[in-house]
Amino acid sequence: MTINANLTAERATFVTHLECSMTGERYDADQLHGLSRVGRPLLVRYDLDAVKAAIPKAMIAARPTDLWRWREVLPVRHTRDIVSLGEIETPLIAIPRSAGSPNVLVKDEGRLPTGSFKARGLVMAVAMAKELGVTRIAMPTNGNAGAALAAYATRCGIEAIVLCPDDTPEINVREIAQQGARVYRVNGLIDDCGAIVARGAAEGRWFDFSTLKEPYRIEGKKTMGLELAAQFGWKLPNAIFYPTGGGTGLIGMWKAFDELEQLGWIGPERPRMYAVQASGCAPIVRAFEAGEEHAERWEDAATVAAGIRVPKAVGDFLILRAVRESGGKALGVGDPAILKAVDDCARKDGLLLCPEGGATLAAYREALRTGEVDEDERVVLFNCATGLKHPMPPADAALDRFAEIDLGAL
Amino acid sequence: MTINANLTAERATFVTHLECSMTGERYDADQLHGLSRVGRPLLVRYDLDAVKAAIPKAMIAARPTDLWRWREVLPVRHTRDIVSLGEIETPLIAIPRSAGSPNVLVKDEGRLPTGSFKARGLVMAVAMAKELGVTRIAMPTNGNAGAALAAYATRCGIEAIVLCPDDTPEINVREIAQQGARVYRVNGLIDDCGAIVARGAAEGRWFDFSTLKEPYRIEGKKTMGLELAAQFGWKLPNAIFYPTGGGTGLIGMWKAFDELEQLGWIGPERPRMYAVQASGCAPIVRAFEAGEEHAERWEDAATVAAGIRVPKAVGDFLILRAVRESGGKALGVGDPAILKAVDDCARKDGLLLCPEGGATLAAYREALRTGEVDEDERVVLFNCATGLKHPMPPADAALDRFAEIDLGAL
Repeated sequence: MTINANLTAERATFVTHLECSMTGERYDADQLHGLSRVGRPLLVRYDLDAVKAAIPKAMIAARPTDLWRWREVLPVRHTRDIVSLGEIETPLIAIPRSAGSPNVLVKDEGRLPTGSFKARGLVMAVAMAKELGVTRIAMPTNGNAGAALAAYATRCGIEAIVLCPDDTPEINVREIAQQGARVYRVNGLIDDCGAIVARGAAEGRWFDFSTLKEPYRIEGKKTMGLELAAQFGWKLPNAIFYPTGGGTGLIGMWKAFDELEQLGWIGPERPRMYAVQASGCAPIVRAFEAGEEHAERWEDAATVAAGIRVPKAVGDFLILRAVRESGGKALGVGDPAILKAVDDCARKDGLLLCPEGGATLAAYREALRTGEVDEDERVVLFNCATGLKHPMPPADAALDRFAEIDLGAL
Repeated sequence: MTINANLTAERATFVTHLECSMTGERYDADQLHGLSRVGRPLLVRYDLDAVKAAIPKAMIAARPTDLWRWREVLPVRHTRDIVSLGEIETPLIAIPRSAGSPNVLVKDEGRLPTGSFKARGLVMAVAMAKELGVTRIAMPTNGNAGAALAAYATRCGIEAIVLCPDDTPEINVREIAQQGARVYRVNGLIDDCGAIVARGAAEGRWFDFSTLKEPYRIEGKKTMGLELAAQFGWKLPNAIFYPTGGGTGLIGMWKAFDELEQLGWIGPERPRMYAVQASGCAPIVRAFEAGEEHAERWEDAATVAAGIRVPKAVGDFLILRAVRESGGKALGVGDPAILKAVDDCARKDGLLLCPEGGATLAAYREALRTGEVDEDERVVLFNCATGLKHPMPPADAALDRFAEIDLGAL
């Protein structure tokens, strides 16, 4: 029994082919793909003219608001392959006190299944893996992606193997294991985990689900852009601050905006895209400032924002391209500013961000200070996961155990 | 800047008065109230005929789906007093493998602000406190209610003082402190904390926000019933399994169904309401089985499901009345069955429940076994909070640290 027609109705699909994000070389749809022949991400292409003719914008607006409302611009062909844990449209929440502007909205991605935006990418990638007959998946993760993979793979009977850095918080590791995946700690960073996954994939042991190494996580992540368009009444905000590790979401949103314009659902205006990194792991910021097309690996990466501790992103050139085309920037923020932003937002606006979400607030505040953004501009900050998964400072001295209480002292 | 018209539009309100849930005595609306003169909860009453005349069901259906869509049957008079952190409509998720029936849906309340259904009650109670000029609130909590109070009170500048049992998990205590409340551990259970709060309230130190001791948390919680009606196409499910501590949600849903019928939006059919408790703290189950109208305090309460570790509920008679009127039952389940249900649901269906949610699944499975419910019946289980806040068993032996890996062993 399901209640939501998005999960049960057969709907027309419009994928025509895939293409290499670097060379434009064409690949057949409906076949299992990893990277392109030149080792770059594949992008899914749709017959958008046909979508435009078939689906008026008002039809989308009338559907339930979860992720599957966007079915005609998603790759899943058969409704039976949809695997769902309730991918709701995430809310936009004002944080006037900590942002210093009433025009800043946090998109709270912590409300998604398994508590992070990784659910968007993984629900799509797992559905496509199911559709294309994959039975065993491996993935490197800093925590949240592994949890999402575990949940969705388990739900449709696909075996999942997850490798994470050995300092990944216990709560993430337990969540992954609890949700039915096999999880291993590796004494290295996420790209070291990724190298192991790649080796096993080359040996035919499993399918490689690393960021952008299969074509469909980006299609799931692009729904962030589709949702923003719908939530803002088909007029995009002025700026988006996005915590950038592998960058799938930023690339995905940029792709979504292009598709929406081709559909005639939005105009040519685009938000300035700000790729936010921690200054302890800022390969994209360094490459942006140096005017380079690719980003070199960041050595000795270290930050409290583990989700963006990604020393080398396979989609680096796509991130940099989107940021530059948009008129945005890549911005680095230090851990003290990140922690201060998390604390301020919770204590002043009652919203507990994850550290990566805190990084976007810290970057916004700095951008406001330097005049890079104006306080009248409509801005979206992405809080990519629930703050509950992340270490919080110990509660302060107000904590006490007592039996006989001086109420006047409370 | 807000995007959601539910949060900005002025809308007509229809509260006529409050009445004592025990005696029916009438109290004026728009004044600050605690319990009734006989020490029982007050219920908010509306001019439902006027609502019916003013608001067609289709108008509700056309609004954004968050909690504030139900404004005409909520107590908040002025839009400026709405305090919001994104109270989305929570999704319904099938768990066919662990439930043993495709007709069981989990309503995943962990998606609400601060990760639990407590947000529904507290957003309403805080908004009304703001409307009625309260500046200082105190509350006993097992964790989740305190977090919701902290977030909403902070957001509108009300001072919040939270008392919790001394074995409340650190994650809950930190969340409360982080979100700007003062939080104290008390060496006792939630009703011991409640006694301290009551004493301070009697001395005029603060306003008492204990379960059902102010009239508005129940109005927030009743939106669970309103949402279910809308999500099920205005035809309620056959049975609801609800984890029952203070019971506000169960009482609230029962009230909602009556109001919906008076509005002509549903018929006279009702779900059977199953109040689920842990067998280590089951005062309502004991009273139900003994045929009593009130439930005595449960001594030496102990269960892994801390959220329903409530030895004495001020609304006991309302819970028992609703359960009996509905043709349901009060059911107790042991901790081993609760933990097994949590584990099964995560490992088989990829959905991580909180222990209290696990209790509803355990109770359902037992009810299915005994024939109390039929597998063809449409059933809703309430997962009242995110599973991430709750202790998970350590990940198993599959966890390992390594540099050189035998991939074949993974």
